[in-house]
Amino acid sequence: MFNADPEDPEAQSASELVPQVSAALDAGDGAQARTLTADLKTPDLADVIELLSPDNRVGLISALGTAFDYEVFSELDETVRNQLSEALPNEFLAKAATELDTDDAAYLIEGLDADDRQAVLDQLPTSDREALERNLEYPEETAGRLMQADFVAVAPFWTVGQVIDHMREAADLPDQFTEFFIVDPTFRVLGSVELSRLLRTKRHVRVDTIMNEDRHVVLASADQEGVARQFERYGLMSAPVVDAQKRLVGVVMFDDVVDVIKEEAEEDMKKLAGVGDESLADSVYETAKSRVPWLVVNLGTAMLGSLVIQQFDATIEQMVALAVLMPVVASMGGNAGTQTMTVTVRALATNKLGPVNAPRVITREALVGLVNGLILSMIIAVVVFLWFGSSKLGAVIGAAMIVNLFAAAVAGILIPLVLDHFDLDPAPASGVFVTFVTDVVGFFAFLGLAAWLLF
Amino acid sequence: MFNADPEDPEAQSASELVPQVSAALDAGDGAQARTLTADLKTPDLADVIELLSPDNRVGLISALGTAFDYEVFSELDETVRNQLSEALPNEFLAKAATELDTDDAAYLIEGLDADDRQAVLDQLPTSDREALERNLEYPEETAGRLMQADFVAVAPFWTVGQVIDHMREAADLPDQFTEFFIVDPTFRVLGSVELSRLLRTKRHVRVDTIMNEDRHVVLASADQEGVARQFERYGLMSAPVVDAQKRLVGVVMFDDVVDVIKEEAEEDMKKLAGVGDESLADSVYETAKSRVPWLVVNLGTAMLGSLVIQQFDATIEQMVALAVLMPVVASMGGNAGTQTMTVTVRALATNKLGPVNAPRVITREALVGLVNGLILSMIIAVVVFLWFGSSKLGAVIGAAMIVNLFAAAVAGILIPLVLDHFDLDPAPASGVFVTFVTDVVGFFAFLGLAAWLLF
Repeated sequence: MFNADPEDPEAQSASELVPQVSAALDAGDGAQARTLTADLKTPDLADVIELLSPDNRVGLISALGTAFDYEVFSELDETVRNQLSEALPNEFLAKAATELDTDDAAYLIEGLDADDRQAVLDQLPTSDREALERNLEYPEETAGRLMQADFVAVAPFWTVGQVIDHMREAADLPDQFTEFFIVDPTFRVLGSVELSRLLRTKRHVRVDTIMNEDRHVVLASADQEGVARQFERYGLMSAPVVDAQKRLVGVVMFDDVVDVIKEEAEEDMKKLAGVGDESLADSVYETAKSRVPWLVVNLGTAMLGSLVIQQFDATIEQMVALAVLMPVVASMGGNAGTQTMTVTVRALATNKLGPVNAPRVITREALVGLVNGLILSMIIAVVVFLWFGSSKLGAVIGAAMIVNLFAAAVAGILIPLVLDHFDLDPAPASGVFVTFVTDVVGFFAFLGLAAWLLF
Repeated sequence: MFNADPEDPEAQSASELVPQVSAALDAGDGAQARTLTADLKTPDLADVIELLSPDNRVGLISALGTAFDYEVFSELDETVRNQLSEALPNEFLAKAATELDTDDAAYLIEGLDADDRQAVLDQLPTSDREALERNLEYPEETAGRLMQADFVAVAPFWTVGQVIDHMREAADLPDQFTEFFIVDPTFRVLGSVELSRLLRTKRHVRVDTIMNEDRHVVLASADQEGVARQFERYGLMSAPVVDAQKRLVGVVMFDDVVDVIKEEAEEDMKKLAGVGDESLADSVYETAKSRVPWLVVNLGTAMLGSLVIQQFDATIEQMVALAVLMPVVASMGGNAGTQTMTVTVRALATNKLGPVNAPRVITREALVGLVNGLILSMIIAVVVFLWFGSSKLGAVIGAAMIVNLFAAAVAGILIPLVLDHFDLDPAPASGVFVTFVTDVVGFFAFLGLAAWLLF
């Protein structure tokens, strides 16, 4: 009954089931696959489905039959869900859409082509179809798509007792809710009352005397990342969603945004690495197409580094050890620059870096660059002296290392700051510029100092 | 009253206030600083404080006096909070600790040295002090620290009506709660009831007939990241916390874990870049100390790349253009490897990659590596032919590019998978190994092919 271990052994064991489930399905033994997955919780079953091959995903859902919980669709990766909804029959999707909350039903059929989508909608009961069509009118990744259409709203003159009695009798309440809303006759939100507040108040009290008027209201057309940021920032459990006329049209609950909250940090990570919004289920073509542009841009900056090296080809011909060592200087600059840049990009994304503390943080990063440059320059100078037996070469590479790690630190903080200042997203672009700086400065400092001091 | 814009202009304008607040504090005009920040919501005031200089942070809190909302401490970056709690008088901290929830009070004083901490604790009312001491007995970053000690627990034979009447009368209820617990006489959790369920049920019904027995229970000693993963995975609003004897001791609420959820993804990002759990408020010494080890390890792998180059020093002496171009091959491999590695590390962290789908994903990545290698090799071959006038050199660098991008893709997926298989965290270590592979393969393929084909 209890899952007292936070390392979540259920999730672990669910993944471990996959080879057996896969083997059962390959052998056409649907009953065995059903038995194996019978006790899984919804998110664990979703994990199993994602880890199966595309054919076996459909096979497992067929094998589960009526035991299949449609909520699984809400937990699936978007690409996997879209592939499944294309593969499954429209009757099945219509049944699922009837059972699911509006927002989850919309996720399920949004990936279908127009004909299939209409075929599914046509099979739905009128009220479900209308709610779903309204939801699908909002663009993807907006609050209108995230929200569920069921909520409790009452007039300001109702008493606590009336609200409690209403909730006991009403048939169409949402499955889970933590607050209800007070609206005027045109459905504008006047305030909200948390259920815990309702329960602590005497029956005869009017709800408008206990309502919280200072609510975070979300526009249905608002971008979901902005909504997630508000939830996170203000510790919200749920938020009312209003249309352009400020009328209450739905509620976004915490569990609808938790994935968005997580993805926001993940997105910056992927952008820094030059990876788009890709899924493990994407095809080779889609993946290659999304990754090539960033590689081509980096090819351009790498060739600019080559141009710098070319200026010193005569020097390299005189002493080929320079060619042996020059990538070390450039790559250490790249590594140190990436450290500073990553910290800066996250600080900007989380509002921790602004005009007032920027000078202080820039100074700190520059000093860290100098300190780390000194430490690494001593190590490399000693190693190079022992390796090539030249104290002069050791001194040159040590000096170049200090210069490049200082440049890396300054570039690592200034480039994201400047991009952000011009309202450009610093995550995808910073890396290209920082590597460019550390390549050019690294090669120029090392080869330039060598040409000047060694011959 | 309403904040209908999801881009959160309040947060924006809060940051924009900082220069004015800073100037007012520098001029000793506390009244002006107070006026400027009077209307800020708690998280926005926390942002302003973080962006101020350390002296002005204390200055602003003094200027705000009784208008200062102690909840601000809960929103602050840990390092800033610790610096502030050291700088503020113990009487002030004791006042704050009395007002705050147990978990937030613990965050406030956990950074103090033992003497100061005891001095604060001694000034607290007995019940607050005992709750806080109990909380502080749990190690940092555990559920025991995250939880609040206030909750509602009733016996299984109570009726819905009794619970509602109890909640109306009880004085010591938590500020915000969404469910209550059913416990046996030894305080073991039998189940829970959501408030929305309670409200929809008739007064005479016994609570044990409507309780949810299939609860996620969290051990007080459990790591907070595991707790956050459960909240995220199962869409929890709150979770009961039990001690080693399975007795209910507290509740973790959604808003306590939302930061942990977010930090988990952020941590992987920082680990990939070789950055520890650092804060913008850390000193130069702390920052340099945390970043140097990763740089030293990378220095080691970069020097191994140099060893490869050295094997071909005679070849480079014959044709210095090789030295000009070789960093391009290595750095493109590094970039492509980083793309694959980032996707793999995130897939592993989110349970999307397991033994069954690994062969499929490895094949896909290898093919993507080949496709991207082909595209980039064509570009570089043409550029090098035009630049150096040698079609042979163009062919050699093109071939080396294909080899290295293929190696980068395979290393980018296999290295995190192998590390994960041996229960090592793939995020911090993968980058070092991947760069090592792409450096060695890049230099070896390009210089080796050149030595073989060009002379």
